[in-house]
Amino acid sequence: MPGNSFGKIFKLTTFGESHGVAIGGIIDGCPARLDIDTKKVQNDLDRRRPGQSSIVTQRKEPDTVEFLSGIFEGKATGTPIGFVIKNANQKSKDYSHIKDTYRPSHADYTYDEKYGIRDYRGGGRSSARETASRVVAGSIAKQLLEKVQINAFVSSVGKLELKRGFDELDFSEIEKNPVRCPDAETASEMEKYIKEIRSEGDTVGGTVQCIIKNVPKGLGEPVFDKLHAELGKAMLSINAVKGFEYGSGFEGTKMRGSEHNDHFNKDGTTKTNLSGGIQGGISNGMDIYFKVAFKPVATLMQKQATINSKGEEVEMQGKGRHDPCVVPRAVPIVEAMAALVLADYFLQNKTSKI
Amino acid sequence: MPGNSFGKIFKLTTFGESHGVAIGGIIDGCPARLDIDTKKVQNDLDRRRPGQSSIVTQRKEPDTVEFLSGIFEGKATGTPIGFVIKNANQKSKDYSHIKDTYRPSHADYTYDEKYGIRDYRGGGRSSARETASRVVAGSIAKQLLEKVQINAFVSSVGKLELKRGFDELDFSEIEKNPVRCPDAETASEMEKYIKEIRSEGDTVGGTVQCIIKNVPKGLGEPVFDKLHAELGKAMLSINAVKGFEYGSGFEGTKMRGSEHNDHFNKDGTTKTNLSGGIQGGISNGMDIYFKVAFKPVATLMQKQATINSKGEEVEMQGKGRHDPCVVPRAVPIVEAMAALVLADYFLQNKTSKI
Amino acid sequence: MPGNSFGKIFKLTTFGESHGVAIGGIIDGCPARLDIDTKKVQNDLDRRRPGQSSIVTQRKEPDTVEFLSGIFEGKATGTPIGFVIKNANQKSKDYSHIKDTYRPSHADYTYDEKYGIRDYRGGGRSSARETASRVVAGSIAKQLLEKVQINAFVSSVGKLELKRGFDELDFSEIEKNPVRCPDAETASEMEKYIKEIRSEGDTVGGTVQCIIKNVPKGLGEPVFDKLHAELGKAMLSINAVKGFEYGSGFEGTKMRGSEHNDHFNKDGTTKTNLSGGIQGGISNGMDIYFKVAFKPVATLMQKQATINSKGEEVEMQGKGRHDPCVVPRAVPIVEAMAALVLADYFLQNKTSKI
Amino acid sequence: MPGNSFGKIFKLTTFGESHGVAIGGIIDGCPARLDIDTKKVQNDLDRRRPGQSSIVTQRKEPDTVEFLSGIFEGKATGTPIGFVIKNANQKSKDYSHIKDTYRPSHADYTYDEKYGIRDYRGGGRSSARETASRVVAGSIAKQLLEKVQINAFVSSVGKLELKRGFDELDFSEIEKNPVRCPDAETASEMEKYIKEIRSEGDTVGGTVQCIIKNVPKGLGEPVFDKLHAELGKAMLSINAVKGFEYGSGFEGTKMRGSEHNDHFNKDGTTKTNLSGGIQGGISNGMDIYFKVAFKPVATLMQKQATINSKGEEVEMQGKGRHDPCVVPRAVPIVEAMAALVLADYFLQNKTSKI
Repeated sequence: MPGNSFGKIFKLTTFGESHGVAIGGIIDGCPARLDIDTKKVQNDLDRRRPGQSSIVTQRKEPDTVEFLSGIFEGKATGTPIGFVIKNANQKSKDYSHIKDTYRPSHADYTYDEKYGIRDYRGGGRSSARETASRVVAGSIAKQLLEKVQINAFVSSVGKLELKRGFDELDFSEIEKNPVRCPDAETASEMEKYIKEIRSEGDTVGGTVQCIIKNVPKGLGEPVFDKLHAELGKAMLSINAVKGFEYGSGFEGTKMRGSEHNDHFNKDGTTKTNLSGGIQGGISNGMDIYFKVAFKPVATLMQKQATINSKGEEVEMQGKGRHDPCVVPRAVPIVEAMAALVLADYFLQNKTSKI
Repeated sequence: MPGNSFGKIFKLTTFGESHGVAIGGIIDGCPARLDIDTKKVQNDLDRRRPGQSSIVTQRKEPDTVEFLSGIFEGKATGTPIGFVIKNANQKSKDYSHIKDTYRPSHADYTYDEKYGIRDYRGGGRSSARETASRVVAGSIAKQLLEKVQINAFVSSVGKLELKRGFDELDFSEIEKNPVRCPDAETASEMEKYIKEIRSEGDTVGGTVQCIIKNVPKGLGEPVFDKLHAELGKAMLSINAVKGFEYGSGFEGTKMRGSEHNDHFNKDGTTKTNLSGGIQGGISNGMDIYFKVAFKPVATLMQKQATINSKGEEVEMQGKGRHDPCVVPRAVPIVEAMAALVLADYFLQNKTSKI
Repeated sequence: MPGNSFGKIFKLTTFGESHGVAIGGIIDGCPARLDIDTKKVQNDLDRRRPGQSSIVTQRKEPDTVEFLSGIFEGKATGTPIGFVIKNANQKSKDYSHIKDTYRPSHADYTYDEKYGIRDYRGGGRSSARETASRVVAGSIAKQLLEKVQINAFVSSVGKLELKRGFDELDFSEIEKNPVRCPDAETASEMEKYIKEIRSEGDTVGGTVQCIIKNVPKGLGEPVFDKLHAELGKAMLSINAVKGFEYGSGFEGTKMRGSEHNDHFNKDGTTKTNLSGGIQGGISNGMDIYFKVAFKPVATLMQKQATINSKGEEVEMQGKGRHDPCVVPRAVPIVEAMAALVLADYFLQNKTSKI
Repeated sequence: MPGNSFGKIFKLTTFGESHGVAIGGIIDGCPARLDIDTKKVQNDLDRRRPGQSSIVTQRKEPDTVEFLSGIFEGKATGTPIGFVIKNANQKSKDYSHIKDTYRPSHADYTYDEKYGIRDYRGGGRSSARETASRVVAGSIAKQLLEKVQINAFVSSVGKLELKRGFDELDFSEIEKNPVRCPDAETASEMEKYIKEIRSEGDTVGGTVQCIIKNVPKGLGEPVFDKLHAELGKAMLSINAVKGFEYGSGFEGTKMRGSEHNDHFNKDGTTKTNLSGGIQGGISNGMDIYFKVAFKPVATLMQKQATINSKGEEVEMQGKGRHDPCVVPRAVPIVEAMAALVLADYFLQNKTSKI
């Protein structure tokens, strides 16, 4: 069943395998007359691109987006926006080591079980390469949400956590270091740790936090399509994500109602914001904040025992250039998915009342 | 925009306010010829019902489901299954204390902002009463998933945690205590704690864990409709939920890839299961397990300062009979939503390959 | 797969069999604050009701709609509007004559082939009884479309055709005769003919024309969801419909472009309207008009040879009280479906541009 | 709102303007392991291509499809199939004559009203050029429906009608003449007539009939998604279509039930087939047949008075190379849309019963 579309009104459908001809997508439902700055889109793509710093994969992919339709003289026309990102060097790789081998904690085995066939080249559709298309669409969604500010950053790498609350952070620091952690000192420790991990041929997990400011009130469609439910789905659909919490999250479960309730100011804002900007599934105008858990990358530069498609035990080792830790490059993806949800719910809310 | 449907093939649409005439729903897409035992449905409803034990709300609601269509001579006919649950005593209550008052951390304020009108009686549509319809549909979904075993239970109440791993638990213990925690000793502590909290007019949060065994391989629709993404959305759509994690979850972010990877046995099972039964968004046949975070109930039996719809500061206090802790009654709801996701994805997977 | 929902934003889902407990539905997506006059809804239902005149079925069904949710103090609240229409006397009938027999040109055979089970009582879900739920929702859709005027009427019965163009008609005549043909003389001939047909135990087909005035410009969602494409689907989904044409329709295929093109006035209106108010799938503000073909009712009060579920030849005869010609009662159904399409597309168009 | 997707399981989303960089689409939900012969796809495209014969537009468009994903070693992988068709010479045209002018009975005016902006080059998105993407997807759908035979042909051009019933026709004749009418004599008259019309700078309408053999029983999803309702929508979504009828169609409305009912043979087939292979919205295994009405092409090689976007009266004349009659090239489009509906409903029916 189709699972490659996201959104109801601002709707992205994507295609493409890691090492096929190209990846890309169609954005249907973007309101006409929106000014679209394609340079901003490319800038966001560049934040996700392999090879951008010394702590991410050193693969070479220029990741240049080409728009094919739906934009005319710098504006959206209301018709679908088609785009492609060509895959560089897609024919030159040697995949004999994974053709019949199931890499541990990858999707090789499950794709074979589900589809009975698998494009094994570079992980095919299960590769995180497809998230580049999300970044393209998310970047246009951000342009629709002119006044909304979406800032994601790395909040932990392994056991190294950013200790400061998000109200104390300066988001302009995020892009100043390769980890994308808005605290120079913590970022530096994280960077050092990632390099250590890589030198051991190992990988490590981490978390990304996202803060959204200036959200219009009223976004969210109870009862099943609550705003945080869709944000959760959006984040959980990103490769390697294992968890999502918003507002007080898991820590909030330990609290009493008398501590947890957010009391109102006269203007409808709240004195605290343990609700995370969403009440009853609908935005209340306060900051939305949430945290996303990323597992360690499964591809190791170490030998691992595994099985092949015949059920035989074999040994394998990751080849090529992989991320030792995914969270620095995940930051723009988290932002993109958040933007897609908000743009879609912003448009959905246009018909909530007469 | 409509937000009251869940699922693509096994699809539930619900309606109903807490204190209107009735709540109910329509299940469209249930395969014909399925044997439907309506007693099992009522049993599941009874597990969610108010007044079932001394630690839940003492409201009187018989919650009797009446089926109106789609079932003929004990079997689904393939046509939509309509059902209603009448609301008891819906006219007799006094709501003057909440008519114009925004209860802190409830949905009163956001519903007014979104819709410009609000059925304030008992929280209207934002009340968790609507989850009864989910339990009805989930119970039928369970009957479709004959061999799949879905077991949810309370894994923490406030800071009191169930310490044992799920492999050590006896699920037949779950229904033996009012907390629905499958460890008698922990359950007893939790029960005592909930009673204390209630005596103070306060409330407390908690977590529910869910284990799903015998899941067919191949369920999940990449890239956006990954199985865990939909499970996450399903859980986050339940009232009071603040977080979702599956498999290794947030703890897994602290691990290295070399610790976290699940190595294969020859038969495709894995030696460990940090993946939580899902790889690349597709079930691999191992146990699916996840944890859901519930915040403390916002209605307190204490005085609270708040505002009214004119922006004036007022004082209010919860009336009537409310849950001091929502997790014991949330257990069948978590199960129901899990069953809805699995039933839908089970049917979605019927066309994955020729 | 679910097929019992219609619309994307103003969305109706229906349930119910002809002789089950009740039929009904859920309207999700109705904008909040809409004034809903439930008497108007009942009035529309009464126009569809059996037994309303001497030329329709004499079955007794009061068809009283009961609203269960989503309306508060006379206004839509933005939450789903649940409703039921109880079936009268649903237990008292004798269905032995159709239990195992496939009535010619009915849905008995195909339902059995598709679902492997069938609620044979009164045709079950395949009965046109389900259209009562459409009339309820359509009547609310009309209230949303305050200024739009939707008028359907009978344009032919068998070979008897209403000869006058719709611009010459007085729509206030429609409800003045039981045929619902806005020309007293033609109506009288049609009525006489229907009575003749009935006296022979036979039935006859006919057409319904629909004219929609004051349509906002810009409704329609190319390329697949063109306004007339959805209107066509809406009409074709009504029981017994075999064809749909709008604007110049089938006659227009015989014309030359130089005759067929609608030339503009300075204000954007057109001098002619062979386009039928829709160009490129989008309304242009001119009258929308279309015609719907209804086949003769398949239930005859004559003996017919047929087969049973074992493939044996048997003889059967319609029992009870059936319509000799469906078009007089189809008029409010056509209007309802037109209203559902327009209301939905009106809301869809809210996000076409910024 | 997005309107560029068709189908629920076998789902096509398209993009692209007539004179943009490229048109194309994404097919999501194609079952894995299907053998895909891309030459057959190109063959179908060639049947729709401009310049293929002396009676169609002489525009040069090679219309070469390029697949970007979802096919691996000749088979569908279950992941989305992305494809593009580059537009030839898209930059070289002069559009000054239509930039600010609203062509009569085109979509220029309505696109401007709806979107407030318009890619005027060659009609932009409203051009029938987008149907090439439908042909690509339809051709793959045909490959999924291996045994089903879908044959469309021209049944009338202006007032010239093909008189023979479809049972008397030899479908192998269809491609033997440029009109695509399976009767050599009638085809020859039609061809002559089209040439006359063209020499006058005029255009003419026509009808396309489609016959589908070997349809599995049970396809169709009552009550709104009846098989013929979706076929009707599919056809009405094609540019220039004004009407759709199936089975006995509009003629059937003149018949009596005693003439119209299709009586069963013992094996469930019927002696007549006025039902057109569909009863109660579900296929019964008999031939499905329907007719589609196409209006005359609105672009004339004659001077016409019209208005511009300022509401001023101006004169215009079609430039370039246009079809004098659209039906010969519409034949593969009708087939493609029929195939998309059947493939989708074939997959939808996989979950109708257990």
